[in-house]
Amino acid sequence: MILRDVQNEYDERNVYLKRVGVKGVRYPIVVLDKVNHSQPTIATINMFVDLPKNYRGTHMSRFIEVLNEFHLEINPKKIREILKRLKDVLNAQRSVIEITFPYFIKKEAPITKSESYLEYNCTFEAEMIDEHLEFFTSVSIPIHTLCPCSKEISERGAHNQRAMCNVTFESKEMIWIEDIIKIVESNSSAPIYTLLKRPDEKYVTELAYDNPKFVEDVARDIALELKKCDKIKWYKVEIESFESIHAHNAYACVSSDELHA
Amino acid sequence: MILRDVQNEYDERNVYLKRVGVKGVRYPIVVLDKVNHSQPTIATINMFVDLPKNYRGTHMSRFIEVLNEFHLEINPKKIREILKRLKDVLNAQRSVIEITFPYFIKKEAPITKSESYLEYNCTFEAEMIDEHLEFFTSVSIPIHTLCPCSKEISERGAHNQRAMCNVTFESKEMIWIEDIIKIVESNSSAPIYTLLKRPDEKYVTELAYDNPKFVEDVARDIALELKKCDKIKWYKVEIESFESIHAHNAYACVSSDELHA
Amino acid sequence: MILRDVQNEYDERNVYLKRVGVKGVRYPIVVLDKVNHSQPTIATINMFVDLPKNYRGTHMSRFIEVLNEFHLEINPKKIREILKRLKDVLNAQRSVIEITFPYFIKKEAPITKSESYLEYNCTFEAEMIDEHLEFFTSVSIPIHTLCPCSKEISERGAHNQRAMCNVTFESKEMIWIEDIIKIVESNSSAPIYTLLKRPDEKYVTELAYDNPKFVEDVARDIALELKKCDKIKWYKVEIESFESIHAHNAYACVSSDELHA
Amino acid sequence: MILRDVQNEYDERNVYLKRVGVKGVRYPIVVLDKVNHSQPTIATINMFVDLPKNYRGTHMSRFIEVLNEFHLEINPKKIREILKRLKDVLNAQRSVIEITFPYFIKKEAPITKSESYLEYNCTFEAEMIDEHLEFFTSVSIPIHTLCPCSKEISERGAHNQRAMCNVTFESKEMIWIEDIIKIVESNSSAPIYTLLKRPDEKYVTELAYDNPKFVEDVARDIALELKKCDKIKWYKVEIESFESIHAHNAYACVSSDELHA
Repeated sequence: MILRDVQNEYDERNVYLKRVGVKGVRYPIVVLDKVNHSQPTIATINMFVDLPKNYRGTHMSRFIEVLNEFHLEINPKKIREILKRLKDVLNAQRSVIEITFPYFIKKEAPITKSESYLEYNCTFEAEMIDEHLEFFTSVSIPIHTLCPCSKEISERGAHNQRAMCNVTFESKEMIWIEDIIKIVESNSSAPIYTLLKRPDEKYVTELAYDNPKFVEDVARDIALELKKCDKIKWYKVEIESFESIHAHNAYACVSSDELHA
Repeated sequence: MILRDVQNEYDERNVYLKRVGVKGVRYPIVVLDKVNHSQPTIATINMFVDLPKNYRGTHMSRFIEVLNEFHLEINPKKIREILKRLKDVLNAQRSVIEITFPYFIKKEAPITKSESYLEYNCTFEAEMIDEHLEFFTSVSIPIHTLCPCSKEISERGAHNQRAMCNVTFESKEMIWIEDIIKIVESNSSAPIYTLLKRPDEKYVTELAYDNPKFVEDVARDIALELKKCDKIKWYKVEIESFESIHAHNAYACVSSDELHA
Repeated sequence: MILRDVQNEYDERNVYLKRVGVKGVRYPIVVLDKVNHSQPTIATINMFVDLPKNYRGTHMSRFIEVLNEFHLEINPKKIREILKRLKDVLNAQRSVIEITFPYFIKKEAPITKSESYLEYNCTFEAEMIDEHLEFFTSVSIPIHTLCPCSKEISERGAHNQRAMCNVTFESKEMIWIEDIIKIVESNSSAPIYTLLKRPDEKYVTELAYDNPKFVEDVARDIALELKKCDKIKWYKVEIESFESIHAHNAYACVSSDELHA
Repeated sequence: MILRDVQNEYDERNVYLKRVGVKGVRYPIVVLDKVNHSQPTIATINMFVDLPKNYRGTHMSRFIEVLNEFHLEINPKKIREILKRLKDVLNAQRSVIEITFPYFIKKEAPITKSESYLEYNCTFEAEMIDEHLEFFTSVSIPIHTLCPCSKEISERGAHNQRAMCNVTFESKEMIWIEDIIKIVESNSSAPIYTLLKRPDEKYVTELAYDNPKFVEDVARDIALELKKCDKIKWYKVEIESFESIHAHNAYACVSSDELHA
C-alpha cells in the first residue's frame, strides 16, 4: 500500500518558514570529558531546518533518524556532520541543533580534598546556513556571591547566596568546559561544592567573606579573563544571584560586543 | 439530537476509583485578605470525586460548572459548599479540592518603613467524605537562614541563604495566613523583603548574623510556637534551605504527630 | 550614621555592562481588559538598565521603587513612563522591562454557549535607548492541532493534540490581545475551551477533523492574517504541538522578516 | 585546630524531627537494565534521617559521603545498604532515600521496526525504620488516550492526546520496570514512540481510534492486570491526560487498597 506523502505537497501560500522541526526530544548521549575521555549523559534536544515556501511540511521522523546515527558521539565535529545530514535528508538550506545536557565534574573540597560530583548544565547551539557554521557553547555554573554593600555597611556578617553564572561563547578552536568553569569559579566570591567537611566549610565561608562581589563584579572579572583567552571569538556572561534578603534575583550581563562601550 | 452519555454506561470491571476529575485548571479567584477584605488572585485547581465501581466515567465538565459558581469567593465556608455541590452533581461519596494561589502582603522594610509586596504561595486542600470534612491550609514563606556551624567555626562571616518554609495546618477555627507568616518570619534568621534600602540591608544583615539557625532550629522553633496556638489541631513544618555553599538544599520536617516522640 | 554607597564607587575595570537589574520579581499588577476595562493579575517582572564602565554597581532597590509607582496601571503608555523613570533614577542610557502575566478571557462554548475562563500568558518586553522605544507584545494561546498526514493515511481517526501558539509583535498603535487570540484560534484546527458540554465536544471534534493542520500550516495561516493587519509592524509566530503519538513536540516558526524569502 | 561540632550540641527544646537531610542532590548513578545489564543515568536524590530530640542538628556532609560509596550501583539490594549506612553514620532510627531518574528503553516502531529511545521517569522511594524496610518503585509512562465520548458522539474523528501514567508499587520480589511499562502501554489507547514512519503512524492512529479509553478506563484496566501479578503487594495507578480540547488535564487514580470498595 502506498501512503500519500502529505508533507511533500505543493504549497501555494508562498510563505517561507525559517524553522520547523522537533523540540524537547529527550535522548541518551555521550559527550567528551577532559578527564575521562567520554561521559554518558541525557540531553534535551531541539532540531530545526528551514522549509522552502512551496513545500507543505517537513518530515519530522527524519530528525530522529539523524539523531540515532550520532547520539553516542556528540562533539563539535559530529555536530557539524549532524547539521549537514539534516540539510541533506530534509532538502534544507539551514539546519539548527540545540543540545542541553547536565555534565558532571569530580571536585575536591578545598581543605580535606574530599571528592564529590557537581553538575554543570551545558548547551551546544549550532546553526548551518549553506556551508557556513555558527557554533555556540553555554555552561551554567553555580557559584557563591557575597554582597560588598552588605559587608561594608554592616558591623558583622554580610548576606551571601547561591548564584548561577551562564557563559556562552564562540571559539576558534575547541575549549574544554572545564576551563570555562575554572575561570568562573575563581572569579566568584567562592566556588560551590557538593561535599564540604567542617574545615572546608570554614575555608569557603572565610574565602567568600574576603571576596565580596556584586553580580556586576563577577560579570566584569569573568569578562576580562575571557578577553585574554585567544581561542575565544565572542562571549556573553550572565550572572543571576538568588539574593538571600529578597525573593527575587539580582542580574548582570556583559558581552564582548560592547565590553568597552 | 440525543448524544449518548458514554460516561454513564454500566461498567462491569467492578473497580472502584478513589479519585477522578480535573487537574491543573487555571482560574481567576478571589480570596479573603486580613487587611483589604478581599484579594483577587490566580489559582491552579484540582478537583476530584470518587467513582463507584459500576459507572464507566465521571462528567468532567461539571467540575468546571461548580467552579464557575464559586470562584469569586474562595474561603473555608465556600469550600465546604463546593465539596457538597461536587458530591451532589457527580453522585459521589467523596469530593476533593486543591487550590494553590499566590497571595501578596504589603510589608514595611524594618528601618525605613519602605513598602513593597511579597508573595506567599498558599494552598487549600479539602476533602469531604459523606458529611465529614478535612481541611488543610498550606503557606510557603520565603525566609533567610544563616548557618550556626559556619558562624561558629569561621573567623569572619557565615554562609547564609534564601530558604522556603512550608507550614501546613488543620485548625479548629479560621486562622489568618498573615498570622502564620508572622510566626515563621520571626523564627527565621531574618525575614525577607522585596524592597530594602541601605539602612534596612544593614539591619537584616546584622539580624541574621545574630540569629544563626539550622533548618532544624527553624523547624523546632516554629513548631513550638504553633503548639501554643489553641486554634491549631494539627501542623507540619518543612524548611528547605537553598544552601549557598552547595547546589543542593538542606531540609528539616516536623509534625505535631510526633513532636515529642 | 552615614552608610557608604559601595555601588557608587569608581570602577577601574573599564567594562561596560549592557544589563544589570532585578529578575523574577513577582508582583500584583493591573492591566487593560478589552471587555472589563481593567484586569488584576500577577506578573513576573525583569527590569534592567545599562551600567557605565566607571560605576561599580547599580542600585537594585530603585527598580522596586519605580515598580511601586506604576504596578496598578500597566499598559503601553505607562511602560514608556516606567522606562524613562528607570533611566532617570539609575542614570542610565538604556532601560528594559519584561512583564509576563496570565490574562483571562471569558469564552462561550461553541454550541451551548456555556461560559468559562481561559488563560492566555502574555509578555510585554520594552527597551528604551536614549529616547527611542522598542515595544514587543507576546501572547501564548493554547490551541488544538489535528495531523493532516495521520488523517490522510489512516482509514479512521487522526492523531490530534494540544498545542501552544506564541505570537510576538510590534505594532504602530495599540492592538488588543483579544484580537490576536481571535486570529490564532480561527487558524488552528480548533480553539480550546475550559468548559465544553457534550454538544460542544461533538462540534470541536468534528471541527478539528475537518481542519487538519500541521504546525507548518498553522504558522503560515496566522502569518498571512497578521500580514493583512496594518497596525502590525513586525511579528513572529511560533507553534509547538505536544504530539500525542510522541513524547516530544513538533515546532514551526515564521517571522515577517523573511515571510516570502 | 579543633572546629566545634555545633550540630552535636545538646538541644533543650525537646522536639523530635522526623526528617532532616539533603534535597535536590543531582548525581550520576548507574541502575540495572533488563536488556543491557546496566544503564548510566542522572538522578535527583533526597536523603533523610530522623533527629532525636536532644541533638541540635544532623551532619549534612555524611549523606553525600554515603552516596559516594553507592552511586554507581543503585538497585534494591544496595538501597537497603544505603539506608543502613545512613542510620549508622547519623545515629538515626529512621532513614529515607528518594531517587528519581530518567530511564531509557530502545523501542521498535510497530510496523517498520525502526528503533529509537523513549524516556520513562522512575523513582525509588525507600524508608527504613529500625530494621524494617519499605520500598516503593514508581514509573511514569507517556501514553496516548483517545476519548470514547468524543468518538461516540461525533460523526468523524475523536479527540486524543498525550497522557502520563504513573504506577507506584511495592513488590515481594524484584520486578523489572520494563514489565510495568508493557502492562501500561498495552492498556492505553496506543503506546507512544520517538520514531514513527508513515506506516507506523497509520497503525497507531487506527489502533488508538479502535481503542478509545477514558482515563478511568486506563486506570481500571491497568489495575486489573497488576492485580494478577503475584509479585506485587501494593500498587497505585494514576493517569493524567493532557486533554487536547482543554488547557487542563483529566485525572484518574486507583489503588489496590480499595480496588473493589
